[in-house]
Amino acid sequence: MPKGQPPVVPDDGLSTKQRRNAPLLAVHTGPGKGKSTAAFGMALRAWNAGLSVGVFQFVKSAKWRVGEESVFHRLGELHDEHGVGAPVQWHKMGSGWSWSRKPGSEDDHAASAAEGWAEVARRLAEQEHDFYVLDEFTYPLKWGWVDVDEVVSTLQARPGKQHVVITGRDAPEALMTAADLVTEMTKIKHPMDAGRKGQKGIEW
Amino acid sequence: MPKGQPPVVPDDGLSTKQRRNAPLLAVHTGPGKGKSTAAFGMALRAWNAGLSVGVFQFVKSAKWRVGEESVFHRLGELHDEHGVGAPVQWHKMGSGWSWSRKPGSEDDHAASAAEGWAEVARRLAEQEHDFYVLDEFTYPLKWGWVDVDEVVSTLQARPGKQHVVITGRDAPEALMTAADLVTEMTKIKHPMDAGRKGQKGIEW
Repeated sequence: MPKGQPPVVPDDGLSTKQRRNAPLLAVHTGPGKGKSTAAFGMALRAWNAGLSVGVFQFVKSAKWRVGEESVFHRLGELHDEHGVGAPVQWHKMGSGWSWSRKPGSEDDHAASAAEGWAEVARRLAEQEHDFYVLDEFTYPLKWGWVDVDEVVSTLQARPGKQHVVITGRDAPEALMTAADLVTEMTKIKHPMDAGRKGQKGIEW
Repeated sequence: MPKGQPPVVPDDGLSTKQRRNAPLLAVHTGPGKGKSTAAFGMALRAWNAGLSVGVFQFVKSAKWRVGEESVFHRLGELHDEHGVGAPVQWHKMGSGWSWSRKPGSEDDHAASAAEGWAEVARRLAEQEHDFYVLDEFTYPLKWGWVDVDEVVSTLQARPGKQHVVITGRDAPEALMTAADLVTEMTKIKHPMDAGRKGQKGIEW
């Protein structure tokens, strides 16, 4: 995509530089593939630019995204050992969040999701990361496990320069309205339609 | 996305495993963001699974994707020095392709694109990489610089188990028909609409 001039220059009292560097809230939604993959691709770029990355996976299954998790752990090590890039943290709901000492209740997904969001909100307030991926976070919103209005107001009030990317199908309208960038991934054709299952290195 | 059973089991004489491990041809198209980013995210996963990665950027501007290029170079070094992941090669059209000794003609983009495709076709025949990203490759196809039918037949006849992901707007119909996976990225909302320019770590 060419850099170029934006089509509109808003009358918001900000300089081009201030506007350019405004923290981004992005949503990747829709039924197609690439929502999370594109979010992790953005995180990669952020890491390379020296932005610390925090990933929060709001899904139960630890089987998925193991490829990305492994690479991001390695990138975090590269930072810690050689000072390149930026720190990386990767937290997943699984059976209790990775920061939590107490074992999570396997059964109470709603409570786990709420706990995850409370921690993200705390970190946003403390500006703990520069770039957040809230992976599959639309589902707890959709299911009412986490309050959409509270999420939107917390995101809008977040201090400093923290970028947030939220992925998942059926993003709530209020979240899309609050976002700076919304991309919908649409499935035109998928190998599962032709009876193919996922494969290592491609699907996970 | 759950792994689960595919909706159809085709009568193609293949075992589930053979079908699962069929090489993938994916196309990321549409006017929205995330087409290339998701392709590089897939490449990341492939690298982690030990698949060698070859990236071919069919765009003139060397300014873009510098973040990804830098990270993938580092991943390639991780492989070469520590044996983790897989080899990585990153080639861009710029002023002549990176494998080419002779300086490219700055002016003849059509010839450069054709040269790039000829090299990719040669590599596919020799099974040089496991995972190819042909970034922004739809444009030379659209502009008639590279023949769509030849591309499709070369891709369909590619030997072994080589995955190919092609990105760019306006993917030709014949390419989408040949592809196993087509995802369209649709722009719902973009910060440039609100007069914001791209920023380091986010856009490049």
